[in-house]
Formats: sequence, structure tokens, C-alpha cells
Amino acid sequence: METVMEEKRRVGEAAAAYIEEGMTVGLGTGSTVYFTIHKLAQLIKEKGLVVQTVSTSKQTTTLATSLGILVRDLNEVAHVDLTIDGCDEFDSALCGIKGGGGALLFEKIVAKASDKNIWVGDSSKAVSQLGEFPLPVEVLPFGFKHTLKKFQEAELNPVLRLTSDGKTYYTDSGNFIVDLHLKKINDPKALSSWLNAIPGVIENGLFIDVADKVIFIKDNIVKEVNR
Amino acid sequence: METVMEEKRRVGEAAAAYIEEGMTVGLGTGSTVYFTIHKLAQLIKEKGLVVQTVSTSKQTTTLATSLGILVRDLNEVAHVDLTIDGCDEFDSALCGIKGGGGALLFEKIVAKASDKNIWVGDSSKAVSQLGEFPLPVEVLPFGFKHTLKKFQEAELNPVLRLTSDGKTYYTDSGNFIVDLHLKKINDPKALSSWLNAIPGVIENGLFIDVADKVIFIKDNIVKEVNR
Repeated sequence: METVMEEKRRVGEAAAAYIEEGMTVGLGTGSTVYFTIHKLAQLIKEKGLVVQTVSTSKQTTTLATSLGILVRDLNEVAHVDLTIDGCDEFDSALCGIKGGGGALLFEKIVAKASDKNIWVGDSSKAVSQLGEFPLPVEVLPFGFKHTLKKFQEAELNPVLRLTSDGKTYYTDSGNFIVDLHLKKINDPKALSSWLNAIPGVIENGLFIDVADKVIFIKDNIVKEVNR
Repeated sequence: METVMEEKRRVGEAAAAYIEEGMTVGLGTGSTVYFTIHKLAQLIKEKGLVVQTVSTSKQTTTLATSLGILVRDLNEVAHVDLTIDGCDEFDSALCGIKGGGGALLFEKIVAKASDKNIWVGDSSKAVSQLGEFPLPVEVLPFGFKHTLKKFQEAELNPVLRLTSDGKTYYTDSGNFIVDLHLKKINDPKALSSWLNAIPGVIENGLFIDVADKVIFIKDNIVKEVNR
């Protein structure tokens, strides 16, 4: 059995095959897209592929720029042809949970500005029901204790995300991430609406009607599933 | 006929009568609450009223602090007893539009953390249908042109708010305000949900099921209406 990292490399590179000459490409964030970005850099260098990209995080901007990929501000491009991003879980309807890496807000904005979205994931990401992976929610620091209280009252098991050295984690927009330990999400659409109606909630990690295609590994084979 | 400023003074001061000893009071933002805050400072000074407050903007924090009112961070108080805030429009169901002053995000967070909300407004604020006043929407700068495009496609007549000297207006959270010139809002609840589902939208100025009481002027008389 291959390692998870090898799985990430295989699906990450497979997704790069969908990038075409002249495209504006949205680059996601995380350990699988890492390999897409490396593959894209190789295609630019070796095949002379001409593309421009927009980024979903400071981390991805730094990586892509260091590899010689043109990264433009999302406000400078009229539209995005294709975004390739990772996911933390996806179900058979291609609904997903994203935000394990903390970049869900910019990821959702880029995804919604894209004509097409492809997700990539190793063999652990396909689930029959969403929710085993804790649902990340981006929360404004102003009054966040009252926002947390609303989550607690609704029995959503909220945990404020900390960094590995125990400090409060900050997103690229200067907000907090609260991870909701739900185990099962019965109605993703209703939960997403409920969360977004709370004024202290900036965005949540449920991505519904976003992914057009998921590339993942099953039984050691790269598979694709389309919406 | 009295001036609008005199109307604002009368309703602003009338609202202060609802502040009781020991309360935690949310202080709104704007030209009518200005008079509530001044009246509160007088009650503290002359009657020895003991209260603590939380603020909805830097502007209000500066004003209240300068008048000797104790302002605490919202995260430091367990709950808010009563918030007094202005509104730009309200209808017979006490739905309202807020955010003309640009503080809608913090105002909505404080309002939702409050047991009770009182709005104050001069004689121009009572309307039969919301929408004549442009609806303020707080929008993230990241990708805001794509968010604007979504508003345009939905024919919501968005206008990016500028300061009086023609620069882009920034909220206390570092976001933009887009004013939607709608004339009429037929379904405030549906519009609010639609707006909050757009990832670049931080919050919108529709306040539904928030106000418990509105104090306003009609025919030169201070009136109160309860939900």
C-alpha cells in the first residue's frame, strides 16, 4: 500500500492535466494541491504553458510565486476558468467540508468566481455522510465568545482552533477558526444557512454545489467522479 | 415644526429612560444614539446610575469614554441586557435597515447578544415598505469585484461606498460597504439569506426579528411601538 503522501502526489498531478493554455486558474491550499502547483510549474517550464493564476492563501501565493507561476490578485481578473483545490471530506453528491488548512473563506470566494471546480483528495476523503471531519467556521474576533455560546446552545461542540504552540489561530483575514465536532451532518444546506445567518460568522466550511469533479484514490487507483 | 436634530434629541433621550441600575447596555452608533449616550452620561453623573456598556463602533467608544461611561469589550461581558441603537428605516413588523453609518456588523453582533433591543429614530424612519434607503452590505476586499458582479447580475444596483473626499470607505473591520439601491424590498428575509450565502458578503443591513421596541416621532409627538 502506498503512503498517503504518494496518493496526494498522484491525484494532485492528475488534476494538472485539466489546465489548458491561456486559462486563469484558481490555486487551492493544502498538501494535495501542493503537488498540482508543482506539476503546473513543471508544465510552464518544460512545455511553455502560458497561464495566469489566482491564489486562495498567503501560503499558496508564496509557494506558486517561488516556483515562477504568475499569481494575480482576484480583483484584477475578470473571471476564473478552473479552480483546483483540496477537500477534507466529500460525499456522493460532491458536497464537501473544507477549511482544515484554515483558508476556507478565500477558497470559497475563488470557487464561486470559477466556471469550474475540481477537488483533489487522497483515499480518506470520500465519505458516505459528512461530519466526521470537524466543520471549520471562520468567526470574527469581535464578540466571538457570544458566537461560541450560540454554537454551544445548539450543541455543535465548538472548539476554538489553536496553533501547534497553543496560541489562538488567525486566518489570513485576521479572524478565528472554530471547529464544530459534529460526527454527522444530516442537512448540510440547512446547517450552512443557519451558520451564515449568525452575524459573527464570516463563512463556514460546507461547500455545496461547488465541485464539478473530484479526483481521488480508491483501491490504489486514481478515480474521477463528476457532479 | 422642530428640526430633525431636535427630534433626534427627544427620542434619543427618551430611550435612556429604559436603562436601569446594574445593566450591561449596548450602545449603538449614529446621530440619534448620540443623544442617548449624552443622556446616559448625565444620569451617571447626576443620579449616580451604575452601568457598564459595550460599544458598536470606534466612534461610539470614543464618545462614550470621553463622557466618563465605562465601555467594556463585548467578549468580557457574559450577556447584554439592553441595546439602544438607531435605524435608517423600519416597517410595521419592526424589520429595519441599518448601516447608514457603516457600523452594521458590530451593531448586529451586539444586537444578537442582547436580551432586548430598542431602536430610536426621527420622523423620517417609519416606512410602509423597506428599501427606499439604500441597503448597506459589508463586503470583504478580497475578490470584491466578483461580489459586486453578483449584485449587478441580480440587478441590485450596487454602489461601492466612498468617503466624502472620494476614497474607498473602510469599516472598523477593514471591509468595504456596498450600498444596494433597491427602492423596494419585497421579501427582506429571503434577500438577507441570499446575501449572507455569498462568501464575499460579511453581513448585510437587514435587521429582522431584532427590535423589540422603536421610539420615534410622529406628528411632533414621541411614540413607541412594540413588537
